[in-house]
Amino acid sequence: MRMVDLIEKKRNGKELSKEEITFIIEGYTNNEIPDYQMSALAMAIYFTDMTEEERANFTMAMVDSGDKIDLSAIEGIKVDKHSTGGVGDTTTLVLAPLVAAVDVPVAKMSGRGLGHTGGTIDKLEAVPGFHVEIDNNEFIDLVNKNKIAVIGQSGNLTPADKKLYGLRDVTGTVNSIPLIASSIMSKKIAAGADAIVLDVKTGAGAFMTEVEQAEELANAMVKIGNNVGRNTMAVISDMSQPLGFAIGNALEVKEAADTLRGNGPKDLEELCLTLGSFMVVLAKKAETVEEARQMLIDVMKNGKAIEAFKTFLKAQGGDETVIDDPSKMPQAKHQIPFVADKAGFVSEITANEVGTAAMLLGAGRATKESVIDLAVGIVLHKKVGDEVKEGDAIATLHSNQENVDDVLKKLRDAYTISSEKVDAPPLVYKEIM
Amino acid sequence: MRMVDLIEKKRNGKELSKEEITFIIEGYTNNEIPDYQMSALAMAIYFTDMTEEERANFTMAMVDSGDKIDLSAIEGIKVDKHSTGGVGDTTTLVLAPLVAAVDVPVAKMSGRGLGHTGGTIDKLEAVPGFHVEIDNNEFIDLVNKNKIAVIGQSGNLTPADKKLYGLRDVTGTVNSIPLIASSIMSKKIAAGADAIVLDVKTGAGAFMTEVEQAEELANAMVKIGNNVGRNTMAVISDMSQPLGFAIGNALEVKEAADTLRGNGPKDLEELCLTLGSFMVVLAKKAETVEEARQMLIDVMKNGKAIEAFKTFLKAQGGDETVIDDPSKMPQAKHQIPFVADKAGFVSEITANEVGTAAMLLGAGRATKESVIDLAVGIVLHKKVGDEVKEGDAIATLHSNQENVDDVLKKLRDAYTISSEKVDAPPLVYKEIM
Repeated sequence: MRMVDLIEKKRNGKELSKEEITFIIEGYTNNEIPDYQMSALAMAIYFTDMTEEERANFTMAMVDSGDKIDLSAIEGIKVDKHSTGGVGDTTTLVLAPLVAAVDVPVAKMSGRGLGHTGGTIDKLEAVPGFHVEIDNNEFIDLVNKNKIAVIGQSGNLTPADKKLYGLRDVTGTVNSIPLIASSIMSKKIAAGADAIVLDVKTGAGAFMTEVEQAEELANAMVKIGNNVGRNTMAVISDMSQPLGFAIGNALEVKEAADTLRGNGPKDLEELCLTLGSFMVVLAKKAETVEEARQMLIDVMKNGKAIEAFKTFLKAQGGDETVIDDPSKMPQAKHQIPFVADKAGFVSEITANEVGTAAMLLGAGRATKESVIDLAVGIVLHKKVGDEVKEGDAIATLHSNQENVDDVLKKLRDAYTISSEKVDAPPLVYKEIM
Repeated sequence: MRMVDLIEKKRNGKELSKEEITFIIEGYTNNEIPDYQMSALAMAIYFTDMTEEERANFTMAMVDSGDKIDLSAIEGIKVDKHSTGGVGDTTTLVLAPLVAAVDVPVAKMSGRGLGHTGGTIDKLEAVPGFHVEIDNNEFIDLVNKNKIAVIGQSGNLTPADKKLYGLRDVTGTVNSIPLIASSIMSKKIAAGADAIVLDVKTGAGAFMTEVEQAEELANAMVKIGNNVGRNTMAVISDMSQPLGFAIGNALEVKEAADTLRGNGPKDLEELCLTLGSFMVVLAKKAETVEEARQMLIDVMKNGKAIEAFKTFLKAQGGDETVIDDPSKMPQAKHQIPFVADKAGFVSEITANEVGTAAMLLGAGRATKESVIDLAVGIVLHKKVGDEVKEGDAIATLHSNQENVDDVLKKLRDAYTISSEKVDAPPLVYKEIM
């Protein structure tokens, strides 16, 4: 088999066989196939697409290119959730304890990464003492006992995907549905997921700015999952404005706790109930999403959800009393209001700009070397559709620096206030089951 | 400027500016742009094509990537001819002396290369003593004096094209009209051509098997030439069967001499008159192609054409008496007939298979290290449309090996004899002026 022949085959719109795809991914992982052939193939895929079968085979070849996490010692169906990124996305912090509270095992492998705020581990480290340095046996024991544990990423998962992603990033081949879908799915499967719930964001703050694109990506991933024996469901959710109110690490932990008690932002709660009920159904703890949703509402009301969060934090060394007294988490020195310069209705909040504003305060990492300030961030008070009066505080900055002119300017750019009444955007565009 | 942005621009079907194309070609030549980005761009071009302006700029950027031959010391308009390859193509050997005989300066830079038979220099070396090791001044003096000289390739011409061609060969991006056209044109222009005549072959023995493809390529090259100030004309000619009768180095020199005397194969003569008359018009030695053609027929008849060939050979050390006595050129030990195994009409001669048969005899190079046997080759006696009787010699093998079973088998595969009368294919499909 020669790579050049396979590139031409794909270029001509023909379907690559499982053996051919395995040859490509193995060869690329072992450096037998050079970058310049792989980038040509990626561009050919960009133009000619992949069939359902190719996508499934491509995904599994990437899974097989490295280590695979074995979660078989954990009882029950391991359902993983993936969000395609966004701003102020606290869903993971809420969902993990929420579904654990109804006996869905949550064995979360998580990382730090770059972004507007930290990764899930960074956020949880706002809880004094909390750590993810547990060994694999302890991790599995904790999930079996408490239904929830988080461990840092280890092992060499999907090296083919890492290498290919780096290549796509510099060769104009990022924006290809089959390549995005197989990349995401391979990571989830290698991490041991039996079933997967996808939260595909759309809107100005998301990778997929158009609903149609987001839907195409979601459908592609659901098909891949179902074709490789991982039941998969997806939600297309709005990221035209930030989700919830808090953007910042300690601030989001507090917001997650509020939400687990049923006192959180309504959009965040609603999305968590939707995603959570899918997880519960996929874990076969409920027959229908309606039944699952009621189970989740019940544990929010009866305190089991917030208890699951505390138990989880304590089990991994965290001071769970911060949940009842968030002031024990890192606090910023200054709270600075961002006020409306005119009256009207909030018609737009560019999520990316708000995210960048939070990063300017120190809430996220611009480079791998950046140090996150867990205390800082932004709490929004007004979202799209809300009425404001001149001088109203639209948001509060939690800052450790006194001069926040650049941050305020970013927020000013992010917010549009119109004189006409505006409706809030829909939260969930579509559910794919 | 970032290469990844330019790849995406082209991928999205936008036109690259002259500055952007220069950035790409310069960066690639200097190894600042890696192969993996260039191959992704080439694949994007394969799918989205290039505009006329992009093609012209791409061509000139490749010309500017290396040395350029300066032929300004040669009087008159230097017209170069390029054939897109084929089997038994003796046109260059005929055309150079033919047009030189009507005062069109022929300053030919030539190479050896791989193929069924040798390059132009290899063929000419069948003339004892002939050599191309002349310095540049001598080369220019000879062209001014005799209107014809051949020099070996020197200098670092179009390094960007060489590098890109090597990359395209292994990334499934060879078969792209804008990339083929700019590659060919850049080489001719860097070699100093003021005007260019293109002989684009079509049919089973050619790179472009379909007439439509060949025409698209020819049009693309003519447009590029005219857009960069090099008047360019093209002929689409048949390569569904070998051109002329001879395939082999010394054999082709003899055939060229026959043709220059007006005694050559009619198809070869006709194509040389067509291409030659274009060259004469472009060199402004005639007003019309009809007038030019008559001039060429005249020099064939009055002996000036064959004289120009002899003068040229002698001036570069060759024994010009071989032209009147071809037995002074290397001769093969054995002449073995290839006979018809049934009666009928020749309906097909696969040019590539005949070429491979000649290479099996030693007439061409399979690898750079192969040594060419100048004596050997094949002389065809029957072409498509000819009637044959069982036992007729269809061709004669000139061989230095006794066992030619594999060669005969190749020829048997190449020839199809049908019971029905077949017309000869057209020689020239189209002229583009």
